[in-house]
Amino acid sequence: MNIGILGYGVVGKGVDDILQEKGLASVTRILVKDESELQDSRMTTDFSLFIKDDSIMCIVECIGGLEPAHTYCIQALQAHKHVVTSNKAMMARFYDELLETAVKHNVTIRFSACVGGGIPWLDQLASVKKTDTIESFYGIMNGTSNYILHQIFMNHLDFDTALRQAKQLGYAEADPTADIEGFDVANKVALSANVAWNTMIDINDIPMCGISTISKDDIDYANNNNYRIRLLGHGIRQGNAVCAYVCPEFIPMDHPIAHVPLNYNMFECNSAYLGAIRLMGQGAGRYPTAHNVVKDIRLVKSHSTPFTSIVSRMAVTSANRRFYIRANDLSGFEPYIETRINDTTILTKEMDTTTAFTLYKGIQNKNSCMIGVSLW
Amino acid sequence: MNIGILGYGVVGKGVDDILQEKGLASVTRILVKDESELQDSRMTTDFSLFIKDDSIMCIVECIGGLEPAHTYCIQALQAHKHVVTSNKAMMARFYDELLETAVKHNVTIRFSACVGGGIPWLDQLASVKKTDTIESFYGIMNGTSNYILHQIFMNHLDFDTALRQAKQLGYAEADPTADIEGFDVANKVALSANVAWNTMIDINDIPMCGISTISKDDIDYANNNNYRIRLLGHGIRQGNAVCAYVCPEFIPMDHPIAHVPLNYNMFECNSAYLGAIRLMGQGAGRYPTAHNVVKDIRLVKSHSTPFTSIVSRMAVTSANRRFYIRANDLSGFEPYIETRINDTTILTKEMDTTTAFTLYKGIQNKNSCMIGVSLW
Repeated sequence: MNIGILGYGVVGKGVDDILQEKGLASVTRILVKDESELQDSRMTTDFSLFIKDDSIMCIVECIGGLEPAHTYCIQALQAHKHVVTSNKAMMARFYDELLETAVKHNVTIRFSACVGGGIPWLDQLASVKKTDTIESFYGIMNGTSNYILHQIFMNHLDFDTALRQAKQLGYAEADPTADIEGFDVANKVALSANVAWNTMIDINDIPMCGISTISKDDIDYANNNNYRIRLLGHGIRQGNAVCAYVCPEFIPMDHPIAHVPLNYNMFECNSAYLGAIRLMGQGAGRYPTAHNVVKDIRLVKSHSTPFTSIVSRMAVTSANRRFYIRANDLSGFEPYIETRINDTTILTKEMDTTTAFTLYKGIQNKNSCMIGVSLW
Repeated sequence: MNIGILGYGVVGKGVDDILQEKGLASVTRILVKDESELQDSRMTTDFSLFIKDDSIMCIVECIGGLEPAHTYCIQALQAHKHVVTSNKAMMARFYDELLETAVKHNVTIRFSACVGGGIPWLDQLASVKKTDTIESFYGIMNGTSNYILHQIFMNHLDFDTALRQAKQLGYAEADPTADIEGFDVANKVALSANVAWNTMIDINDIPMCGISTISKDDIDYANNNNYRIRLLGHGIRQGNAVCAYVCPEFIPMDHPIAHVPLNYNMFECNSAYLGAIRLMGQGAGRYPTAHNVVKDIRLVKSHSTPFTSIVSRMAVTSANRRFYIRANDLSGFEPYIETRINDTTILTKEMDTTTAFTLYKGIQNKNSCMIGVSLW
C-alpha cells in the first residue's frame, strides 16, 4: 500500500522510520512546509500532488494545528483516500465533519494516536463499548504537566524551574500554554468521550483549570495531607449528557496515579462488567506516537472497520465534587465553604462542577488556584 | 450465532449473562457436570450433543483444569467449531496441539481471558508485535497473592490471616496452592511469552517461588528499606530463548506497582518503539473475565484473524538478578553473597536466575524464603 505523509516533524519522521524498518507500507510522497526542507525525492511542498496520485490509498496527517491540516484531510477523504492522523486539536474541533466526510466517501479516518501517544486508549474504549457499558473515564492525559508536577513533588523544584527543565528535555513547547493550562487535556477528554459514547461534545463547553498558578502554599498543603497533585481530565456519562472537566487534583499517596512518574500518561475506564481498567505509558514522543499511527495504517490496510461512528451530540453537564480554592477574593464561594484553611484558602463542600468553575472564573487571577479534592 | 458453553460456574454464568443482556450471540446449549445442576432446557450433561449440533458455531470452554476440558476443546475444533476459553492451565499445557488443531480444521481458538481476566493484555501483546519488537514483559499476574500482600503491607495482617480473608471474599480457593506458590503465574508467563514471540515455552521449565513462606522478618526488612513485596512473573526475550521466572520481589515505594491494591493485576510490556506500556485491572472474577470471553466471541463472529500462531519452541534461559535469601542453611550461596543481613539472611550479588533458583531449591524448606531485589 502506498501512503503519503503530511508533515515531517517529530511524528511524521517517526512513522516513516517504522514503516521503512517493518516494510508495512511504502511512503511515496511526503509534504514539507517549504523548499528548504526538501531532503529526498519523495518530498514536495505541493499538496495537490497527493490528491492527484491515485496510487496513494492513505494520507497520514502529522502537520498538527487546525489549518491547513483540516482542509487537507477533508480533501483527502473527498478523493477517497483513507486518513490517519495524530492531530488531536483538529479531530476534537472538526470531529463530526471529518467522520461524516469519511462515511460519505466510503473511506475511514483513524486517530488512535491523538490521545495518549502510543497507549491503546481509544482502541480500548472502542473495544469495551462493544460488549459493555462505559460509565466514566479519567486520566493523566498530558505528559508535560505531569513531568512538571513530578519534579515539583519528587525533586522539590518550583514551577518555573520545572517548566524550564521540561522545555530543555523537549517535553514542553516554546509556548507551553496548551499543555499547562488544560487545553490539550480538554481536546483529549472530548475525543475520549466521543469514542466512548458515539457522540460529539463541544470542547468549548469543557470547563478547565491548569497548573501554572500552583504555589508553594498549595504544594505544602498537599504534602501536609499526604497528597500529590496531578492534572486530570474527566468524563462521566450522565443520562444523555457527559460531565467533562479538566482540573488539577489532590491524589492520596496510596493511589497508584499519585506515582505516575515523569512525562507518563495514565488512563482509567470504568464500565459495568469490566470494572476499572488502567493504561499507562508514554503519552507523546516520536516513536510511541508513531507506533499508534502505524497501527492505524495497518488496520486501514487490513480493512478493519473504523472504531467509532457518530450517533448524536451530547451536552456537557456537571457532577458534584469538592474543591480547594485559593484566591485573594473568595466572593461567591461563601455558601459552599466546608473548611477555611486560612484567610485566602478554603475547602468547599461537594458542589456541582459547573457552579464551581463559573464562580472560580469570576475571581481567577495569577495569584489564585483551584484544585479538585480527589474522591479516593 | 449459536454458541455452546461448557461449564456453568463463575465464568460460564457470567458469559451467559452478558450475552443475554447484549444480544451478541445465542447460548443454545450449556454443559453441566451432573444431573442435579440441570436448571433450564439448554442444559445437558452430554457433551456429544454439542458436537452433533451443526447450528453451534462456537464452543466456550469454562470448565477449567486439564481434563476433560482439553479433550472437549480438541473434539470441538475437529468438528470445525471455533473455541473460546478462559482456561489458562489447559492453554499453557496443550498450546501447540490446540493451535495446530485449530489451523488444521480452519477454525480459530481464542483465549484472551486466560491472562489478566478482563485486562486486554494478550490483545495488546498481539497488537504490539505486529508493528514493534517486544523485548520483555512482567506483571502482577495473580490477584489472590496480591490481595494477601496488600493486606500484609497496608493492614499489617500476617500471612495466615490474610489468606483466610481472601478465602472468605472468594479471592482464594479452598486449596490455594496454585495461586500462592506461583503455578498460576507460571501459566500466565508461558502464555504471554507464547503470544509475544509466536512460540511455545514449556511451563515446567519456568523456575518459581511463591509467597507462603514470607515471614515477619522479611516484611520488616521490606518496610525498613522502603519496599513493598509483590509476586511478579517475568518474560525477557534473549536471542532465540526466553528468560522466564516467577518470584516475589521487593519494589521501591515510589514505583507504581508497589501500590497496585487488593486483588488487582498489573502488566507491563516493553518494546523498542513504544517503550513501556502498563495495563491494570481486575485479573479475575465473573464479569471481568466474562467480558474478555465475550470480546473473543465477538471477534470469532466478525471473522477476525486469530491473534497468534506458532513459529517454533523456545528454550527457557536465565538473566542476572539480585536476590534476598533467608534460610537456616545457605550452602551454595557463599560465592554470591553481597551483604550478610544476619546469620540466616543474605543479599546476593547479581547472579543468573537459573543458578539462583537451583541453589535455592536445594536448601528450600518451610522456614526459608527467596525474594528478588527489584531493578528499579
